Amino acid sequence: MNSICNLFNIQYPIVQGGMVWTSGWRLASAVSNAGGLGLIGAGSMSADLLEEHIQKCQKATDKPFGVNIPLLYSKVEEQLDVIVKNKVSIVFTSAGNPMTYTSYLKEKGIKVVHVIGSSKQALKAQSAGVDAVVAEGFEAGGHNSKDETTTLVLIPEIVKAVSIPVIAAGGIASGKAILASMALGAKGVQIGTLFLMSKESSAHDNYKEYLTKLEQGGTSLTLKELTPVRIAKNQFYDELMELYAGHASVEELRAKLSKGRSKKGIFEGDLSDGELEVGQVASSIVQIQSVEEQFKRLILEYKEAFDQLKSEL
Amino acid sequence: MNSICNLFNIQYPIVQGGMVWTSGWRLASAVSNAGGLGLIGAGSMSADLLEEHIQKCQKATDKPFGVNIPLLYSKVEEQLDVIVKNKVSIVFTSAGNPMTYTSYLKEKGIKVVHVIGSSKQALKAQSAGVDAVVAEGFEAGGHNSKDETTTLVLIPEIVKAVSIPVIAAGGIASGKAILASMALGAKGVQIGTLFLMSKESSAHDNYKEYLTKLEQGGTSLTLKELTPVRIAKNQFYDELMELYAGHASVEELRAKLSKGRSKKGIFEGDLSDGELEVGQVASSIVQIQSVEEQFKRLILEYKEAFDQLKSEL
Repeated sequence: MNSICNLFNIQYPIVQGGMVWTSGWRLASAVSNAGGLGLIGAGSMSADLLEEHIQKCQKATDKPFGVNIPLLYSKVEEQLDVIVKNKVSIVFTSAGNPMTYTSYLKEKGIKVVHVIGSSKQALKAQSAGVDAVVAEGFEAGGHNSKDETTTLVLIPEIVKAVSIPVIAAGGIASGKAILASMALGAKGVQIGTLFLMSKESSAHDNYKEYLTKLEQGGTSLTLKELTPVRIAKNQFYDELMELYAGHASVEELRAKLSKGRSKKGIFEGDLSDGELEVGQVASSIVQIQSVEEQFKRLILEYKEAFDQLKSEL
Repeated sequence: MNSICNLFNIQYPIVQGGMVWTSGWRLASAVSNAGGLGLIGAGSMSADLLEEHIQKCQKATDKPFGVNIPLLYSKVEEQLDVIVKNKVSIVFTSAGNPMTYTSYLKEKGIKVVHVIGSSKQALKAQSAGVDAVVAEGFEAGGHNSKDETTTLVLIPEIVKAVSIPVIAAGGIASGKAILASMALGAKGVQIGTLFLMSKESSAHDNYKEYLTKLEQGGTSLTLKELTPVRIAKNQFYDELMELYAGHASVEELRAKLSKGRSKKGIFEGDLSDGELEVGQVASSIVQIQSVEEQFKRLILEYKEAFDQLKSEL
């Protein structure tokens, strides 16, 4: 049996990435009900709101689901209390030190996965005792590694570096890309952008519609002086580039980003002034479907690509 | 039969990327003799030197080989005259407009392939009448597209956009990565960095040795204001970053780059002051082998990866 399916007790080794303002109980339960692993993205939630989403998700599915916790916010400990109290059995951590909470969570019987962008980080996560790592390449949306290593280069190096299963992330939105990830040695995939563009995601309809028309080169990894983040090139991005051209300080960049800008863009649908976090692969997604339709397509494409793959060497 | 093998009359659909100061007759003939397609990299050659390399390559192999011509230099027409005069049957063009010379070369019975970094460029190359395109992702070494689309995202989009065969480039140095490229719909691969790090490449031994120790994140796509280029992060790169931090003008950047800096680094082995063009995947290559050994390894890895690939969905 596939080690990722086995680890989480799921049908398909397809994990939905935890995304701010996008992946609440509705998206997470839809992915879990479709046979993948849904994740509630806690990054944009207070501990109370997270609890509400966990409880709604528990009602909406009897399949396993998890919570993604970015470790860079001050509310982490409250969020972890909510997770333990509500008996969530799977936690994905990202953007922080896997040493801090992994053993605490493991002692509570929780499966822990950490998101990494380099072999060094992967080895650290393995030492911390995580059950698997998500290896996320440069093309992924949202927060990303300064190293800029792409998924194609990163996956084989991480598979070689660690003995735990590797979940590939970044640039994956088709059955072909899932097959390619498996060929590189990944045991599962994490998919963000495609599920952001599902009917069940809580991203604003304006934003989803806008993304169906996004062209190649329409995103950029920027704000490397703060936390590097991949966003769509909208008016806010252009204004950031003007700040860079005018040699803005890190403080000026931080002030421009400000609090609430990702909510404004992703959740409220302000396409000009909002920060629009998304992966490169949005350029290949042209329609908004339900999660169930997306899963059917992914699995069909995967099977077709697998059957068509001949030994060419 | 594989369409790329068929197009070039070669055994394996593995093309060696044309690289400045690296791929003369010795490397190109070694790759062709191993069953792939060797390319003489004309970018760093005068027309006279190119002619010498073509004639030496013709003596060193009776297999097909080609010439890569970057279209951004003034010497292009002289180089094309040498190619026609010496009956070279395969030309790869890059970094320029495929409309300018493709029909001329096709009329001479020459097979033409153009290197692209977006669907728009691929469609333009197809309209110009090329036989195939090389789709090169962000992770590739040397000159690269401003779009920054990675190989994993780019290949399926190019395969969908055009009807001619697609050769994947960028981040490929293992049999696993060749298999992944095929899963994405590519019919062949172009490999640069691995062959740069072969015994037969004319890169300086200091440089090859240095690359065997390069770490993840050890390269960067920079000089985007001139022609974007991926280079190793050495002292010259650090000095460039200081210029950027000091808000240098495009003219100052151009003056810093100067003529001869890639020769200094790649060919003369000056690891501090030279410009060291190389792809991200160098971090996964730890030994210098002969081209023949590299081919044996690639094919063995490919077959193993192909045999191990199970349907996981």
